[in-house]
Amino acid sequence: MKTDQEYMQLALDLASTAKGKTNPNPVVGAVIVKDGVIVGTGIHRKAGEPHAEVHAFKMAGDYARGATLYVTLEPCSHFGKTPPCANLVKESEVSRVVVATQDPNPSVAGRGIGLLREAGIEVEVGVLEKEALLLNERFIHNMKTKRPFVISKVAMTLDGKLATHAGHSQWITGEEARFSVHQLRNEVDSILVGIGTVIADDPSLTTRLPEGGKSPIRIILDSQLRTPLEAKVTDCKEAKTWIVTAEGTDAEKRAALIGKGVELIDVPLTETGLNLEFLLNELYRRGVTDVLVEGGGEINASFLRAGLIDKYIVYVAPKVLAGKHSLTPFSGLDAETMDEAIDLSFHQIDKIGDDLCITAYPTCKR
Amino acid sequence: MKTDQEYMQLALDLASTAKGKTNPNPVVGAVIVKDGVIVGTGIHRKAGEPHAEVHAFKMAGDYARGATLYVTLEPCSHFGKTPPCANLVKESEVSRVVVATQDPNPSVAGRGIGLLREAGIEVEVGVLEKEALLLNERFIHNMKTKRPFVISKVAMTLDGKLATHAGHSQWITGEEARFSVHQLRNEVDSILVGIGTVIADDPSLTTRLPEGGKSPIRIILDSQLRTPLEAKVTDCKEAKTWIVTAEGTDAEKRAALIGKGVELIDVPLTETGLNLEFLLNELYRRGVTDVLVEGGGEINASFLRAGLIDKYIVYVAPKVLAGKHSLTPFSGLDAETMDEAIDLSFHQIDKIGDDLCITAYPTCKR
Repeated sequence: MKTDQEYMQLALDLASTAKGKTNPNPVVGAVIVKDGVIVGTGIHRKAGEPHAEVHAFKMAGDYARGATLYVTLEPCSHFGKTPPCANLVKESEVSRVVVATQDPNPSVAGRGIGLLREAGIEVEVGVLEKEALLLNERFIHNMKTKRPFVISKVAMTLDGKLATHAGHSQWITGEEARFSVHQLRNEVDSILVGIGTVIADDPSLTTRLPEGGKSPIRIILDSQLRTPLEAKVTDCKEAKTWIVTAEGTDAEKRAALIGKGVELIDVPLTETGLNLEFLLNELYRRGVTDVLVEGGGEINASFLRAGLIDKYIVYVAPKVLAGKHSLTPFSGLDAETMDEAIDLSFHQIDKIGDDLCITAYPTCKR
Repeated sequence: MKTDQEYMQLALDLASTAKGKTNPNPVVGAVIVKDGVIVGTGIHRKAGEPHAEVHAFKMAGDYARGATLYVTLEPCSHFGKTPPCANLVKESEVSRVVVATQDPNPSVAGRGIGLLREAGIEVEVGVLEKEALLLNERFIHNMKTKRPFVISKVAMTLDGKLATHAGHSQWITGEEARFSVHQLRNEVDSILVGIGTVIADDPSLTTRLPEGGKSPIRIILDSQLRTPLEAKVTDCKEAKTWIVTAEGTDAEKRAALIGKGVELIDVPLTETGLNLEFLLNELYRRGVTDVLVEGGGEINASFLRAGLIDKYIVYVAPKVLAGKHSLTPFSGLDAETMDEAIDLSFHQIDKIGDDLCITAYPTCKR
């Protein structure tokens, strides 16, 4: 007989296999246990497809009666693309439901749990809640802020250099770390860079994994519409490209880019550049639930100073480049004192090949 | 009955308690085991005092006969400040000696082990050798290069900033990390900074630990002899100060500094500043076995580009400062391509309070 924690961990492990594939939905895993035997398992695989509970109950059949359901997120109580899971749970006649965390979706937000309790089912909430919140950090952020979850990804030397003063950066990190960046791209809806990066490196910004992988939408911040028509990102066969620019940029260039399949998003200008809050709201309206910001240093600093970075993933290579004018991962306006620094908290440190991967979160989230 | 590895680990643990207190000697620990019982233990506590074996045999007395001696470094074979330990080991009539690693001192270098084997004692070499080499990395470097072991210590934000453009750096790391820097100072013979740091921060550069602690010699690189006479480092009551300058700097200033107890070391100038190799040779001649280089960015880069850093200790605070002109831990001349970066290998990552402490070594040592 395993503990509630162990069964919930299994449900979380199942859920995590779908990470990046369920957007805009959360990832969810479910496990049904009767007399110490796992009789049903399920994963929500994709928006529009059945929820995790549906799969688990289908597998469990009559064994569900009197069993315990472990589910990583509160069963839904509303009709979305599929009928409410709370009803299904009631009908299944399980005697106990263990939920990792409440659904932050305002259409659910405790109503699912309420329905179950009203039906006389014992419900326990909060088993491995921290892990469950982390697993669905993107979804929870979306629900709370109605904006995409912004991940700042940086690859730098141990002394904090992004590239030489001449812009040379190939390669800072090793193969394994670069591979893990492609896994990251495979999990997000969009990837964002500045026009400087497009002009300097002409990257394709697609996901390159042995099994293919999903290429996110490529978003280029380009207030003056300087993206060259021959830039790799203007080739929209493999992935979509959205160029974020200001109203009134050159009409001929606009037409040429649109002709190549690029979409243009007009965003108001502020004193410090394109209005990033406006942009994020617009991206969310278009269904983008997360953005991987891949720099350069000026773009990173703009998101930082606007308080818009929700997660930091910093690859650190075992190298020291030095150089007074080497490029830095967060550039932009200068602070006078250390008090102006943005406080983070380190979440995880992994060794990936010879490199380190440091994950951190801002300590004061909006 | 424990294994050879376990007894050797104990000897290493004993030895490590004396780290920083035995310079210029290595740290050494010894354990004598008879019939599964530890009958003797010893540590070399201080240069000029008895070696670890002497203490261990004194404790073991007659129990040593037929016992096994575990010692972290090959017993010495030469008359230094104390008679050779190899003779003592022979006379003790132990039947077996387990040595972690050979003594790199050219006056020993296998001769101690040879003497024991000639006397018919079974000798095994190489148990936990890697750990033993690491523990005495400073001593081994001294023996091999006849120069001090150079440790570069840096405290920076996650985005590689040492201070704001205005030089403000208090505080980057938290209390625990700053405390660990004082522990580090307590272990080294000398600490080195550039005149820029003295002028900007007026640091005292002494060791401040609850139990007091040993303040290292403060070495200031000051080619133009700009150290203010009222700078805290010119107060030589708590710690010695050596100012490294060029011949022919202002005679009156020289006299005034000497009058305050400061020693001046004249070093030839090269195209890029003071000749650091010359300086390190001179420091070793004066009995300095290690140097903790604490920056700023220009000094750090000078040591880096000269290939003179033997170990990197980088404290990383969970903060992002950003800023195009923020100060960087390794500044200096710019590289054109990433190939010019110095390759390291990460050795250890510790969490100290909220900060990280990354230890790394250059992959190609001289």
